[in-house]
Amino acid sequence: MTKECCWCNFTNEEKQSILFESTYWYVFLADNQDYIGRCVIVLKRHCINLSDLNLSEWIELKELINRLEKCFEKILGAELCNWSCLMNDFYKSATPNPHLHLHARPRYRNAITINGSSYADTEFGHHYQPKKETLLTDDNRKTLFEMMKKFLNQEQK
Amino acid sequence: MTKECCWCNFTNEEKQSILFESTYWYVFLADNQDYIGRCVIVLKRHCINLSDLNLSEWIELKELINRLEKCFEKILGAELCNWSCLMNDFYKSATPNPHLHLHARPRYRNAITINGSSYADTEFGHHYQPKKETLLTDDNRKTLFEMMKKFLNQEQK
Repeated sequence: MTKECCWCNFTNEEKQSILFESTYWYVFLADNQDYIGRCVIVLKRHCINLSDLNLSEWIELKELINRLEKCFEKILGAELCNWSCLMNDFYKSATPNPHLHLHARPRYRNAITINGSSYADTEFGHHYQPKKETLLTDDNRKTLFEMMKKFLNQEQK
Repeated sequence: MTKECCWCNFTNEEKQSILFESTYWYVFLADNQDYIGRCVIVLKRHCINLSDLNLSEWIELKELINRLEKCFEKILGAELCNWSCLMNDFYKSATPNPHLHLHARPRYRNAITINGSSYADTEFGHHYQPKKETLLTDDNRKTLFEMMKKFLNQEQK
């Protein structure tokens, strides 16, 4: 099963987007930065839904959520975070082979500024737009990545 | 804080929609049945985000997820469930006072039939529509409620 799943075998290029790694999970900075700081949290082993997570994985997920929500607030100035676990795309296939992951979208009352560029959350107070294009330039993405990676890998108090 | 929060003080009418109750959580059948079987899982105490959940509440949430995903699959024939924890509406206020809750939307490859009425998930394989109107008639909602309540309150194997 894992051989058929590209989420079980990330390429070295894909791994360049890992912000944080724990025993059971990877945290990636999402390719699509439609909401600044958007992350994807991916279980390292193949697992099809939340029910199939074991207790150790579930407890570690809570620690990651705490770490990420703190990062979004302290480093990015987000006021809340939208969490979701959907996996719809896998079900376009007649024989779906989903790999468990979650989405984290920080949400901003006030615009966030990176390298002088200002990014407003134009839907704040409303559901995120499911299909929105990335906002960040490559340079600003790199700055964001480094800021978040540094914070997430610090010893947490 | 709790006095200002209507999610801390449900009316008796609202409590009529409780499908299942655990030590820390309520499971409501959502008013809006845009996705058949849609539920809202509400923490009994006031808590503003996932970070502020304690470990006992988090572990019990996992048990509820297992119970609900089993119900969606076995009783309703759902193929997966979309989970989200958003709380955007609270942030329309300048002084938001969010009360932690999650949304569960079962998703269906094949239409579900209740009392002879067929309900198709026209977005299966795609993101749920955030603003979709309820599909169920009152009678069919009542049938669905009783089916789900019975299953959720059975001893789980």
